[in-house]
Amino acid sequence: MTGRVIDFRSDTVTKPDAAMRGAMARAEVGDDVLDRDPTMRALEERVAEVLGVEAALWVPSGSMGNLVALFLHLRPGDRMLVPDRAHILDNEVGTASWLAGGTPQPLPWDGGPGRPTPATVRAHAAPGGPYFALRTALLCLENTHNAAGGTVTPVAEHLALVEAARDRGLAVHLDGARLWNAAVALGVPAADLVAGVDTVQVCLSKGLGAPVGSLVGGSASFVTEARRVRKMLGGGVRQGGVLAAAGLVALDRVDRLSTDHDNARLLAEGLAELGWEVDPPETNIVMARADDPGAAVSWLARRGVLTVPVGGRVRWTTHRDVRREDVVDALGRLVPVAA
Amino acid sequence: MTGRVIDFRSDTVTKPDAAMRGAMARAEVGDDVLDRDPTMRALEERVAEVLGVEAALWVPSGSMGNLVALFLHLRPGDRMLVPDRAHILDNEVGTASWLAGGTPQPLPWDGGPGRPTPATVRAHAAPGGPYFALRTALLCLENTHNAAGGTVTPVAEHLALVEAARDRGLAVHLDGARLWNAAVALGVPAADLVAGVDTVQVCLSKGLGAPVGSLVGGSASFVTEARRVRKMLGGGVRQGGVLAAAGLVALDRVDRLSTDHDNARLLAEGLAELGWEVDPPETNIVMARADDPGAAVSWLARRGVLTVPVGGRVRWTTHRDVRREDVVDALGRLVPVAA
Amino acid sequence: MTGRVIDFRSDTVTKPDAAMRGAMARAEVGDDVLDRDPTMRALEERVAEVLGVEAALWVPSGSMGNLVALFLHLRPGDRMLVPDRAHILDNEVGTASWLAGGTPQPLPWDGGPGRPTPATVRAHAAPGGPYFALRTALLCLENTHNAAGGTVTPVAEHLALVEAARDRGLAVHLDGARLWNAAVALGVPAADLVAGVDTVQVCLSKGLGAPVGSLVGGSASFVTEARRVRKMLGGGVRQGGVLAAAGLVALDRVDRLSTDHDNARLLAEGLAELGWEVDPPETNIVMARADDPGAAVSWLARRGVLTVPVGGRVRWTTHRDVRREDVVDALGRLVPVAA
Amino acid sequence: MTGRVIDFRSDTVTKPDAAMRGAMARAEVGDDVLDRDPTMRALEERVAEVLGVEAALWVPSGSMGNLVALFLHLRPGDRMLVPDRAHILDNEVGTASWLAGGTPQPLPWDGGPGRPTPATVRAHAAPGGPYFALRTALLCLENTHNAAGGTVTPVAEHLALVEAARDRGLAVHLDGARLWNAAVALGVPAADLVAGVDTVQVCLSKGLGAPVGSLVGGSASFVTEARRVRKMLGGGVRQGGVLAAAGLVALDRVDRLSTDHDNARLLAEGLAELGWEVDPPETNIVMARADDPGAAVSWLARRGVLTVPVGGRVRWTTHRDVRREDVVDALGRLVPVAA
Repeated sequence: MTGRVIDFRSDTVTKPDAAMRGAMARAEVGDDVLDRDPTMRALEERVAEVLGVEAALWVPSGSMGNLVALFLHLRPGDRMLVPDRAHILDNEVGTASWLAGGTPQPLPWDGGPGRPTPATVRAHAAPGGPYFALRTALLCLENTHNAAGGTVTPVAEHLALVEAARDRGLAVHLDGARLWNAAVALGVPAADLVAGVDTVQVCLSKGLGAPVGSLVGGSASFVTEARRVRKMLGGGVRQGGVLAAAGLVALDRVDRLSTDHDNARLLAEGLAELGWEVDPPETNIVMARADDPGAAVSWLARRGVLTVPVGGRVRWTTHRDVRREDVVDALGRLVPVAA
Repeated sequence: MTGRVIDFRSDTVTKPDAAMRGAMARAEVGDDVLDRDPTMRALEERVAEVLGVEAALWVPSGSMGNLVALFLHLRPGDRMLVPDRAHILDNEVGTASWLAGGTPQPLPWDGGPGRPTPATVRAHAAPGGPYFALRTALLCLENTHNAAGGTVTPVAEHLALVEAARDRGLAVHLDGARLWNAAVALGVPAADLVAGVDTVQVCLSKGLGAPVGSLVGGSASFVTEARRVRKMLGGGVRQGGVLAAAGLVALDRVDRLSTDHDNARLLAEGLAELGWEVDPPETNIVMARADDPGAAVSWLARRGVLTVPVGGRVRWTTHRDVRREDVVDALGRLVPVAA
Repeated sequence: MTGRVIDFRSDTVTKPDAAMRGAMARAEVGDDVLDRDPTMRALEERVAEVLGVEAALWVPSGSMGNLVALFLHLRPGDRMLVPDRAHILDNEVGTASWLAGGTPQPLPWDGGPGRPTPATVRAHAAPGGPYFALRTALLCLENTHNAAGGTVTPVAEHLALVEAARDRGLAVHLDGARLWNAAVALGVPAADLVAGVDTVQVCLSKGLGAPVGSLVGGSASFVTEARRVRKMLGGGVRQGGVLAAAGLVALDRVDRLSTDHDNARLLAEGLAELGWEVDPPETNIVMARADDPGAAVSWLARRGVLTVPVGGRVRWTTHRDVRREDVVDALGRLVPVAA
Repeated sequence: MTGRVIDFRSDTVTKPDAAMRGAMARAEVGDDVLDRDPTMRALEERVAEVLGVEAALWVPSGSMGNLVALFLHLRPGDRMLVPDRAHILDNEVGTASWLAGGTPQPLPWDGGPGRPTPATVRAHAAPGGPYFALRTALLCLENTHNAAGGTVTPVAEHLALVEAARDRGLAVHLDGARLWNAAVALGVPAADLVAGVDTVQVCLSKGLGAPVGSLVGGSASFVTEARRVRKMLGGGVRQGGVLAAAGLVALDRVDRLSTDHDNARLLAEGLAELGWEVDPPETNIVMARADDPGAAVSWLARRGVLTVPVGGRVRWTTHRDVRREDVVDALGRLVPVAA
C-alpha cells in the first residue's frame, strides 16, 4: 500500500488554487483580438517591467513564445546556435526548422551543464565564405537548462555569452521557461538574467502554478510583430483575462520557488543515501542516473511515485503541489535499488 | 449624449457570465499535455458527439483549428479550393500558404452568397496534366459564411458540394466557426451540416459566449495527428479544464442563438426603414451598404454604436450581450444617412 | 497521310541550331560556383544592359527565376497580387505559397486581356487593419501574358500599373518569360517594359531558341542575394559557360520574333476562315475556342498538328522551328470543325 | 616565378574536353519538360542501371538532387540523422530545414571518419514518447564523406548502417556526390554501395568531369514524384540533351578516378616529407592540418597553388585537370612550413 500518488513528473502539473480560481472568476475581460483585454494588458505590462524589456505578449504556451521569437529572428537558410539538448531542439518538434526554416546547430556543454563557452559561440558563428552560404543569425540560450537538470547560468556567464553573440552579429533569444528558478537560485532579479538579449520567453504555468500561459518579451517593435505572428499561429484568444488573472497571482509567488529548491535538495540527499547516483540540484530538478531509466520509472510508479525518463536518467521535479512531507513520504517508499 | 456603448462589432466580444465563471472556478483539471485534462476530455467527447465525428481536439482559437486541419490536408504545391473572401483566406494571414505551402484558389459565389456551385468545384478540381503539376487536394467550406453576411448553406447544397469534391478526389474541411448559427437557422442538428466532411472546426467563443476555445474534429486518426500539430504550433495548454468548463456551459446555449437571429432581423428592418440598403439577414450578421464604410462606422461610433467595415459594407453582429432593447436603442440613435 | 509532325505546342520546343552548337563547343568555361564562369558572366552583363537593370543572374529555368524573386520579395503571411491565370499561379506549382509562404491574390483582367487596371491594384492593396494582419507586399506582372494568349501590356499601361503598386508600397516583379515578344510587337526596347520594376525574369529558351536558361535581374544587391538563393535551390551549376554561349547567340536573334508574329497572324486568319473562333494574336500565340479543347487537340494531333489545351481553348504557338510554309501546310490538313 | 596556376581547390573545376564538347554539339535533343529529351532519357536509364535502382532523374546540381530527396522524405517536424559536418548540413544552406521543415541531428563519427556506428544510429532514432513528438524519419549517409577528407564507407559498414536505419523504421538517403570515388577505391561496383537505400544522388560534374549535372535515383514512383518536385524547384530544363550527352561521356570515365587517387597519395607523401601533418588519403582528397588554414591557403596561392580551407585544415583535391607532373611541380614550389 503506497498511499496517494506523489507526482514528480513536472512542475507543469500544478493545479490552480482557490486564490487563482477566485481571481479568474472575478477577472475583468475584453476581446483581446479586437481591442486588448484589460487584464491581459495588465499582465503584459507587469511582466515587461519585471523582465526589464519594453513590452511583452501573452501566448498560450512556452513553445509558442519560442516559436514566435524564432519565426521573427530567422530567415530560411539561417543557422541558429543552441546548447545541445535544449528544449527548443528536442521537445518543440523542430520549430526552428519547420516553421522558420532555420538550421539548428547544437553546441557542446563546454561552459558548464547546459551551456557552451563564449569561445565556442564565437567559433561556430564564424562566417564560412561565399561557397558555404549558411548564415549564422541567432544564439538561443536556456536558463535554467531543463535537460541538463535545471542548471543555472550565472549572470556573468550569461553576459559573456551574449557578448560573444553580439561580437559575431548574432541576435540572442532566451528560453526562460524556468527563468524564475534561476533568479531565485542566484538571488538576483530576473531582469539581470535577461540583460542584453533581444527576446525572452517566460512561463507562468510551471513553478508559478498558473493553469495556462507564457509571455514573450523584447522591444516594442518586436512585440508588435509578435502580435501578428501570434495571430498567424492561432494563438490570439478573446477574453483571455480569465487566464491573465491567474497569471498575475502567479507572479506574486516567485519567491516560493525557494521551497521547491529546498525540497529538491532534500530529495537528492535522500536518493543519494538510498544509493542513487544524483547530481546536486541547482534548482527544482533532480537527475538520478539509471541503467534503464524506463524500468526505473515504472518501478517507482508502482510505488505511487511518478517521474519521467530524460536521457539516461530519471528526472524528478519539485513544485508547489509537492510538500516537504511528500518528499519524505516518497523517499520512505523506496528501498535501495541498483537502478 | 448617447447612453452606453452598444457593441455590434462581433459576437466575439461576449463576456463570460456568472454561470460560466462559476464553472471555471470549480473545474476539475489536469495536465493536458502530459495526460489529458479531465474537463478538456469531457468537452472534446461531447463536441465529437454533437458533430457526429469520431473525435475532437480543443484549440485556443478557430484560426488554429483551421490551421491544424490545413497543415494535415495539404502538401507543398497542393491547391485548395475555397469560396471567395472566406475567413481562412482574408483573415487568417494566409495559413494555407505560409504554413502548409498550399495555394488557395478562390471560387466565385455562383451557388449563393458565400458558396460556389458543385459544378464550379468540379471544374476547378479538374487535373491540369503533367505540365501543370499543381494538384488540387482540398475543398474548404465555410458555414455560415462570415464575409457574405452570415449566410447559410442548406443541408442539400452542403451535401452536393461535398459530393462534387469527392468525385474529384478532394478532401473537405469545413470552417464552422459559426456552424451553430447555421444549424439553428435551418432547425437541423449541427451534425447534418458536418455530414461527409473530413474535418470540421467549430468555435465556442463567438455566439455561444465562452471566453476562449474552439475544437477541430474528424476521424480518430486525424485527431491523433492533430494533437501533435497543435503541440508544434504551441497550442497545447496545461490545466485547460478551466476553459473547457466554460465551453461545456456554452454548448448548452446553442438554442439561444435564435434570439440573436431575431434581433438581427429587427435590426435589419429598422435600418431599412432608416434608408439603409440592407441584405435580409440569414443569421446574426447584418450587412448594410455604404459608399464609405469607414466613414459610416465612425459616424455610428460617435453615437455610441460600434460596428466594423467589411468589404464595401458596414457589418453589424448581434450576440448574447446585445438585447432586443439595445437594438431598439441603437436604431433610435440614428437618423437617415446617405451613408 | 499527314506528312511530318508540325509542333505548335510551345516555343520551348525549338532546338539549338548549328551556330548555337558551335558556340557551345567553343565556349570558354570556369567553375561558376567557385569563381564565376567567364561566359556566364558575359551573358549576365549583357542581359543586365539590355534590360536596363544593374545586374542579372543566370538560372536554369524561368520558373527558378520567378522562384528566386518571390522568395526574396515575400515573407510568410504576405499577399501577392497577380493577374488571374498567370503562369506563376497556374504553372509553377504554387511557388509563392509553398516556398515563400505568400498568399497569391488573383486579379481580374479588367485592364485588358491578362492585366488588371491600376485602380484594381490600388483597391486590392489597401490595408485591412490590424485584425486582418495580411500584408500586401508584391505586384507580379506578366508580359506577354501566356494564358491570355500572348497579350502585350503597352509601355504606358505598364508604367501606370507600376505606379499604382508604388503608391501602395508594393514591390513589383515582372515575369518576362516572353518579354522579347512584347518588345518586338511594340517596337520598343525591352528596357522600356522593365522600367520601374524591382525584379524581372526573362527566358532565352523560348522564342530565342537557346536550349536551357533564363535570367533574373534587378539591383546589384538583389542579385547578390539571388545568387545565394539560387544555391539554396540547387540552381548553381559549374561550367555553365556551355549554356551561356548558346544564350549569347540567342540574344542576337530577338528581331526574328517578328517572323513568328507574322506566322501567328497568318495562322489565325487561316483558322478563322476554317470556322474557328480566334482572338487576333498580338504576338506568337493563337488561342482558338473549342467546346472540348482536349478532343480538338486530339483531332489535330491525328493530322500531325500538335497543340495544347489551355483553359477552354486550343493554344497554337509559333516559333523558330515552324516556318511560314509549315503554317500553310498545317492549315491545309484541317477541314472546318465544329470544335 | 611559380609557373602556371595549379588548381587543387575542387574536382568541380574540371573543364569539358574535346570529346565531351563534340558529344554536346552532336546531341539529339527534345523538350524534356514537355515530352522528355531523348539523350536525357538515355542518361537517366544508364545511371539507374549502373546504380541498381529502378529509375533516375537528371538535376542541375548535386544540391538539387539532395534537395528533391529530402523534400520527399521529410515532413515538417521530422528529424533527420546525418553524420556531423555532412555536405548536406554545412554546404547546402540548410535544405532539410528551410525546404522540408525537418530538423537535422548531427551524429558523431564514432564509426570512422565521416560516419557513425550502427549503434549510434539506433540510439538516436529511438522514439521519444508522445510528449517529445519529434519523429525521426531519415538517415542521410555521405560516401565518400567530403569534410572528413574523402573517406570511404566500405560495403559491410554501409549495409550495417542501412540495417540499423531499417530496424528503426527510417528511410535512407545516400549523398553520393563522390560515390564513384568510393567504388573505385574499394574496387566494387557502385551499385554495391547503393544497396538498401531508398534514394541516392550522384554527380557527373566532379571527378567525372561533365560541365553540369547530377542524378537522383530510387524507385520508379519516387522518380515520378521527384520529377514534379524538380519542376517546383525550377530544375526542369528544355533541351537538356546537350548536357546529358556530356554526362554519358563522363560515365565512361569512372575508372580513371584511380589516377586521381594515385595522385592524392603522391601528394600526401610529398606534403608529409615537407613536414605537413597529413591524413593518408582514401580517395582524391588530401587534408593537411594547419594552425591557421586561411593563412596557409594564401601562402600556397602566392606560389600558384590553389587550395581551400575546410575546418582546421587545408583541403587539396586531385582531379582530371591535375596531372602527376602537376603534383610534382606543386610540391616543388613548397618549402617546409610550420603551417
